[in-house]
Amino acid sequence: MVAAAERMAGHEIRARCRTADFTQQTSGLAPGYVQCNIVILPADDAAHFESFCTLNPKPCPLLAVSNRPGDVSLPKLGVDIDIRTDVPQYRVWHEGVLTGQRHDIVELWQDDWVAFALGCSFSFEEALIAAGIEIRNISEGVNVPMYRTNIDCKSAGPFGGKMVVSMRPMPAADAIEAIQICSGYPSVHGAPIHLGDPHAIGIADLAQPDFGEPVTLRANDVPLFWACGVTPQVALESARLPIAVTHEPGHMLVTDLKNAELAS
Amino acid sequence: MVAAAERMAGHEIRARCRTADFTQQTSGLAPGYVQCNIVILPADDAAHFESFCTLNPKPCPLLAVSNRPGDVSLPKLGVDIDIRTDVPQYRVWHEGVLTGQRHDIVELWQDDWVAFALGCSFSFEEALIAAGIEIRNISEGVNVPMYRTNIDCKSAGPFGGKMVVSMRPMPAADAIEAIQICSGYPSVHGAPIHLGDPHAIGIADLAQPDFGEPVTLRANDVPLFWACGVTPQVALESARLPIAVTHEPGHMLVTDLKNAELAS
Repeated sequence: MVAAAERMAGHEIRARCRTADFTQQTSGLAPGYVQCNIVILPADDAAHFESFCTLNPKPCPLLAVSNRPGDVSLPKLGVDIDIRTDVPQYRVWHEGVLTGQRHDIVELWQDDWVAFALGCSFSFEEALIAAGIEIRNISEGVNVPMYRTNIDCKSAGPFGGKMVVSMRPMPAADAIEAIQICSGYPSVHGAPIHLGDPHAIGIADLAQPDFGEPVTLRANDVPLFWACGVTPQVALESARLPIAVTHEPGHMLVTDLKNAELAS
Repeated sequence: MVAAAERMAGHEIRARCRTADFTQQTSGLAPGYVQCNIVILPADDAAHFESFCTLNPKPCPLLAVSNRPGDVSLPKLGVDIDIRTDVPQYRVWHEGVLTGQRHDIVELWQDDWVAFALGCSFSFEEALIAAGIEIRNISEGVNVPMYRTNIDCKSAGPFGGKMVVSMRPMPAADAIEAIQICSGYPSVHGAPIHLGDPHAIGIADLAQPDFGEPVTLRANDVPLFWACGVTPQVALESARLPIAVTHEPGHMLVTDLKNAELAS
């Protein structure tokens, strides 16, 4: 009998991704295990992209990079990772334009490609829920709403653009506790970068997110805004590389690391 | 030549209080040294008041108590403290009503009195300023605005009543950093207890504080509300003890402890 995906370990989810019988979103799966945003680029652009992550650690918290170009493993994140097959769903980009989705990239893979794994908000959402804080996008069963802001990322080579944020509304007392908890997780976006008035960071209407879906705001809610792992995809759009690959949002690489290990 | 009070150590301020040539406010004096709110009560009510502090640690963070009734020293806070003389200005209360101010309480002191020293926001204000955060009441040269809320304290014996909060407005990014910094100082009120909408905690108008003076709120400011050391004075009013003594707000006991020692 096969275990339900909700109770699987990281390596079990990856094994199922490899046989392409698992192509779903990974939110709420393999509880306790770190999930990652993925960006894959030719080596010529890798140093600039790594600088972009180092310069913008809140939207792009770098957890692991390929040991050398062409290496499909990420041993820091899991013993048997093959980055060509272990993500449930991939996005392929040409000249900064999304051109397709795939369940694996075995046939696309090139010897000079480098994979980057970035921290993901699923880790801190788990810590907030453990503290009894309601995460609205989870209780409403939708993707978290994400917005393009007027905040400039620091540029590196062809990579730049505006920061994308995710928004989670909650009562003020929970907001204070969420800031305290997330401050202990700098490698998964850390504390929010803004709270309160969305116009102050260039967001016109919370009901119309640029990515994900809107959530309900209640009378006593304060909106909290976190730097978001979609930011590097926006940087890829503006970089217009001949080719690049990312995960499909919500369809993350599930690792063998535990969220508890990320707490500082 | 006598050193300017701004550069004095805790014991030097206390020495000047003792000769009654220093009766000023202590905000900004003896930088780096912990200052305390003071409550002095007959022993019969001391156990209840200590319970009140333990039950309400955010408004009433207890730093030290007399070793025994009648003992005028507080050795945990300074080697030579005489609590009858070392506060710049005292308030005397009868039946919960403020009946007078004094520079010392040598003639009032009774053998069954117990002194309580509680943490004060001056400690965390210093840490915020060191991080480059503007504290509006300091930059505008006024006492911090304080408000009675609709938040019930937990009662102990005759002590109860609503929590008093102090309010400091600042831009959202500073508010997030202030929450992070103050979380490291639980013994001086810790993190704010509320942010944003004042009505949510029963405050009708920020321009009309119940204690202290109003400060300017700018367009992008978020008001942050901290549990306040005036709360025990409100609890004293409702307890209507035959006699009690406190410090005059802003005229604190300056100790030999360093603020840095309070950081957790």
